[in-house]
Amino acid sequence: MLDIRFLGSGGGMPMPNRHLSSLLISFRGRTILFDCGEGTQVAMRKFKTGFKTIDIICISHVHGDHLYGLPGLLSTMGNSERTEMVTLIGPRGFRNFMDKILFLVPNLPFPVRIIEGGGGPLIFRLEEDRLLFQEKLDKYKENLTIDTLELDHSTECLGYSLTLNRRPKFLVEKAEEYDIPKNFWKRLQNGETISYKDREYCPELVLGEERSGIKISYITDSRPVGGIVDFINKSKLFICEGSYGDDADLHKAIKNKHMTFREAAKLALEGQVEELILTHFSPSMDEPSEFIHNARESFANTSLAYDGLSKTIGF
Amino acid sequence: MLDIRFLGSGGGMPMPNRHLSSLLISFRGRTILFDCGEGTQVAMRKFKTGFKTIDIICISHVHGDHLYGLPGLLSTMGNSERTEMVTLIGPRGFRNFMDKILFLVPNLPFPVRIIEGGGGPLIFRLEEDRLLFQEKLDKYKENLTIDTLELDHSTECLGYSLTLNRRPKFLVEKAEEYDIPKNFWKRLQNGETISYKDREYCPELVLGEERSGIKISYITDSRPVGGIVDFINKSKLFICEGSYGDDADLHKAIKNKHMTFREAAKLALEGQVEELILTHFSPSMDEPSEFIHNARESFANTSLAYDGLSKTIGF
Repeated sequence: MLDIRFLGSGGGMPMPNRHLSSLLISFRGRTILFDCGEGTQVAMRKFKTGFKTIDIICISHVHGDHLYGLPGLLSTMGNSERTEMVTLIGPRGFRNFMDKILFLVPNLPFPVRIIEGGGGPLIFRLEEDRLLFQEKLDKYKENLTIDTLELDHSTECLGYSLTLNRRPKFLVEKAEEYDIPKNFWKRLQNGETISYKDREYCPELVLGEERSGIKISYITDSRPVGGIVDFINKSKLFICEGSYGDDADLHKAIKNKHMTFREAAKLALEGQVEELILTHFSPSMDEPSEFIHNARESFANTSLAYDGLSKTIGF
Repeated sequence: MLDIRFLGSGGGMPMPNRHLSSLLISFRGRTILFDCGEGTQVAMRKFKTGFKTIDIICISHVHGDHLYGLPGLLSTMGNSERTEMVTLIGPRGFRNFMDKILFLVPNLPFPVRIIEGGGGPLIFRLEEDRLLFQEKLDKYKENLTIDTLELDHSTECLGYSLTLNRRPKFLVEKAEEYDIPKNFWKRLQNGETISYKDREYCPELVLGEERSGIKISYITDSRPVGGIVDFINKSKLFICEGSYGDDADLHKAIKNKHMTFREAAKLALEGQVEELILTHFSPSMDEPSEFIHNARESFANTSLAYDGLSKTIGF
């Protein structure tokens, strides 16, 4: 189960009535933040999400509306006496920006790990009550896998997907059939092979087939390039920028390397996602809802983000 | 005449109900910004002050609640296609911080001048429709003089005073007595010496005595050190931090190098200012008004800043 909270839904500039696009995804009480424009920590206070559980921060690109909230947020996290590491992920060149940001926030009481660029999935698991980076996926445990895709924006920009795998089902009938003592069941489910009375029990004996997990994908800011369709394939939730609702603004979307609602919806359709939520609305668009039909004509299960929107996605 | 607008009144962290301490002082349509914490540009939008007229930005110190709004504000000013120089003033070490901030805001379309530390008054005058740095004061013109004082905080911190001089009165009766043609009057008032019909007219012939101008002083963040009393002397308006209203929080004020309401009011009294406005309230203080009596017992003409408060001060 993943809990999603939209902290803001705006693009370009922070506005009094709309925080900048940013979202939190929580897993068993620990949190991943996607993007952090100016005012993100204010939205966290407004929606009472807290900031103490954030272990990972994914930055799509180094434009201010996705980044300028970092000094304040890191500083506030430091003032809360956090000591656990925070992992920050961003596109190529991100480390250089982070060097400057960390200069502005001296004496942080927690270590910061910076991961730059995409290059293969990053795996995290809940260990010691926080999300810790792992060398490889362990299908018997709950892993959060972060994948990235290079997007087509006016600067290096990464799309993200987050996948929570589903552990194989424990087949009680098999365990009983093999007469395995109950005190071994949990260990087998966790992937341990058990030796008992000259016999060896491997997890596969009692575990079911692979089950699909929860995939959430997050694409902003970009033109709707083809690679996105494969990247978001079969997401339970596809969160996509919709800078412009009006089809008549397509030329602005092209010029500024963004998308219209219709373009985002077409990606959702082709990517066979279950649900699309549009976000990152241009400040020029007062009422995004006036244009939602442009998205729904291509992809019916479309809705619009708003500041504070929360939802839970189960398996 | 100076117009003052408080953009925020909080200290420490930006809150949903209180922007960080920051204020705009406008003179004939051009503006000086004092401090710029995260969200300052949002407050500017909320109170519809605009940001296009800002020529000078004075930063008290490089703590986040006074500084982290700069990348976003400069970026937004850049997006408004400004090309005129912006002067930024800050304490010793400020330039190093500005280098990092300017890295985060590449390709600004306007030049930035950074002035570090105090060291003597800085003089600005309205020329070419903006506030331009001047080598020296011209008493015949309207000069804005910015003075600084080193404060006692946990990092290098500057207090500021802003003085608008008052031009000498033009004495019509004198001009008539000396039979000076009317078309010379304006030039004489502007300090020009006129030669006409073998006679020389100097401005002093027709101008009155020196008149006191408008002085506004701004002190945050600091303990109430003695130098402040002279520095703020005879201000028409003294804007001072009042991080803690409750006298019982004096130990916090001492520990964190801030002031209580009572301490700020005592400075106002000793500095013989006309009016005190307290600002920079700790996030722990929900209702600063509960404590205003602690200030008024020392200095009756005390009021509390609130986000959006505006006032005009004439000669």
